[in-house]
Amino acid sequence: MSVYLDNAASTVLVPQALAAMSDAWSRPGNPMSLHDAGRRARRLLEESRETIARCTGARPSEVIFTAGGTESDNLAVKGIYRARRAQDERRRRLVISAVEHHAVLDPAQWLADHEDAELVILPVDAHGRVDPEDLRAELAEHADEVALISVMWVNNEVGCLQPIAELAAAAREHGVPMHSDAVAAVGHVPVEFAASGLSALTLAAHKFGGPQGVGALVLGRDVAAQPLQHGGGHERDLRSGTQDVAGAAGMAAALQRAVDHRDEDTAAVTAVRDRLLAVLDTLDGVTVNSGPEGLPGVVHASFDSCEGDSLLMLLDAKGVQCSTGSACTAGVASASHVLLAMGLDRAAARGSLRFSIGPDNTVADIDHVAAVLPEAVGRARAAGLMGVR
Amino acid sequence: MSVYLDNAASTVLVPQALAAMSDAWSRPGNPMSLHDAGRRARRLLEESRETIARCTGARPSEVIFTAGGTESDNLAVKGIYRARRAQDERRRRLVISAVEHHAVLDPAQWLADHEDAELVILPVDAHGRVDPEDLRAELAEHADEVALISVMWVNNEVGCLQPIAELAAAAREHGVPMHSDAVAAVGHVPVEFAASGLSALTLAAHKFGGPQGVGALVLGRDVAAQPLQHGGGHERDLRSGTQDVAGAAGMAAALQRAVDHRDEDTAAVTAVRDRLLAVLDTLDGVTVNSGPEGLPGVVHASFDSCEGDSLLMLLDAKGVQCSTGSACTAGVASASHVLLAMGLDRAAARGSLRFSIGPDNTVADIDHVAAVLPEAVGRARAAGLMGVR
Repeated sequence: MSVYLDNAASTVLVPQALAAMSDAWSRPGNPMSLHDAGRRARRLLEESRETIARCTGARPSEVIFTAGGTESDNLAVKGIYRARRAQDERRRRLVISAVEHHAVLDPAQWLADHEDAELVILPVDAHGRVDPEDLRAELAEHADEVALISVMWVNNEVGCLQPIAELAAAAREHGVPMHSDAVAAVGHVPVEFAASGLSALTLAAHKFGGPQGVGALVLGRDVAAQPLQHGGGHERDLRSGTQDVAGAAGMAAALQRAVDHRDEDTAAVTAVRDRLLAVLDTLDGVTVNSGPEGLPGVVHASFDSCEGDSLLMLLDAKGVQCSTGSACTAGVASASHVLLAMGLDRAAARGSLRFSIGPDNTVADIDHVAAVLPEAVGRARAAGLMGVR
Repeated sequence: MSVYLDNAASTVLVPQALAAMSDAWSRPGNPMSLHDAGRRARRLLEESRETIARCTGARPSEVIFTAGGTESDNLAVKGIYRARRAQDERRRRLVISAVEHHAVLDPAQWLADHEDAELVILPVDAHGRVDPEDLRAELAEHADEVALISVMWVNNEVGCLQPIAELAAAAREHGVPMHSDAVAAVGHVPVEFAASGLSALTLAAHKFGGPQGVGALVLGRDVAAQPLQHGGGHERDLRSGTQDVAGAAGMAAALQRAVDHRDEDTAAVTAVRDRLLAVLDTLDGVTVNSGPEGLPGVVHASFDSCEGDSLLMLLDAKGVQCSTGSACTAGVASASHVLLAMGLDRAAARGSLRFSIGPDNTVADIDHVAAVLPEAVGRARAAGLMGVR
């Protein structure tokens, strides 16, 4: 038996996305070409843009297709930072949360190292949440110097939701643009761009049943940004490169499905989640780090005296697939910056697993987890916390 | 009847690519995940990398997956320029040909505008070809100041091949890295990275039967480059972002097919090309700009006293789909920089069409062109060269 509980790393492609892509591929066409085939490709691209806009509460002209979440985050962080500084040299401050994904953290750090940015890190509480008061205090003192704020909608490791509306309202009040990496949120919780008050928002198709290698940056019409990739001038001249028509169609179909089925998906995922929490509750020395108000599909737990990687491999050998945190840092032998920021000590941080549930998972999957988890934990503990300091 | 003669803009997806992608999608998995599903995805990604390396005469570790040709070109031009300047401040010169695609031209211009680069443009002859003597002269005088040379393998508009081996030999002699945008070449003519003497080479899947939104930069192990996209550190830390496993598999399958069938594809395409040239030969006032030594699939011609866009639309109405040049600049009402560099005057440049032939085209397709082209040219001439100066 094989149980896939790593949907936060990459979801199964939904049939609707596959059908949309197969349809797109049945005919050739570059959406920039002027002839009939090109216009057909363009129409499909624009229909996909409209669907994504509708599903995220944005206008079609605000949807910029990219190759995924990392590219969208880079475009938002660097592109807006540069545009803001070009308008006013004093805007050097980049305000981000302590629990951002590396796709935001690393471009921000790069700007600090190479383009004179000053990083301002908002702390989080034990649940991983930013306190809007901290942002308000920063803005009260430094609004004129802030280039950009970037706080993720949902944390990818522990699933907590950030108070985006409150944060964005504070940003708006001071006229400072705010971006949100909503890669873990879109398709799973309601995300309405216009209503959110944000200036920019990132999504990635393979987190909600679409293909890998496809994403978008939703960017308000009035938000200045400089492109990172230069060429033919595609996508409002913000992202040159032949558009991936089939990928866009696959992303749109997957997002439409996710939005249409959100209530039933959430109910199904919550039932599986509750069963998993009940299983964890039967074990000694387990602390659940994901809160009840977080994303229903994410269960994050620390196992006393366990090395997360060892436990992951023992579970994998028994057909249970999960992760120690972000897939992007898998194999990196250091404690997660997210968990440390939440106040976990290094040992607890390294002895952690993330189980991420998708609509295809069943209660029977968790019965299998219940059958193999106790022994795996026992073995991992026997092996000891080797090398963890 | 609909005849697609715009394969240089985007090819039809070959069945081998679709099968490889469908197979990849039948199972979920992020190639960075440590469990069985992740390792399987990783294996598929690495097998795809090996195939692409084998088909381009490179080592697998030299293949960096990207989202397409434009991204690869940006990474090569900006990434190598920055690394070279970081090693030696004096290296400000960026040597490119006058007929580069905008995906090379625009990042180069951006570096000139923002990062103090000095653009050195190599002229071309009437066939669009660079004279290696011009590069040798530049290097003899300025080798210490040259950051990077970038000359495309095959021109995307007129199909001419550049003397890459000679150019790369001159670059090597002076220890200056050279990149080549081989988007129009890979899969169509033999391209051997190691044998070429190049430091970096760009390819894009949708130009040889693979999916849009997928490409690669082949980058020599010893060539320093700075990443443009920061995050999880994927692809030798040169291109962060979850890899598109299915896309990579589709690109590899398409390239393997193209290489396996190159001889027969070339024979088929050449037969169709020759028939098209014979048809053009029957018309008055037509000049063929693509040379006999260029890519067999590209026929580029100027039609006296015609507006290219008008002729394109008239042909499209009769089921013949071609282009006025690069798809990336379609709809832009200015003469192609490629044709002007070759010495065409503005009227001839604007009165031009590119027909690009793929292995699916037949001589019957050209019979249809022969049936509709004379009337279309007559009408376009009657409408006159409106607005062309």
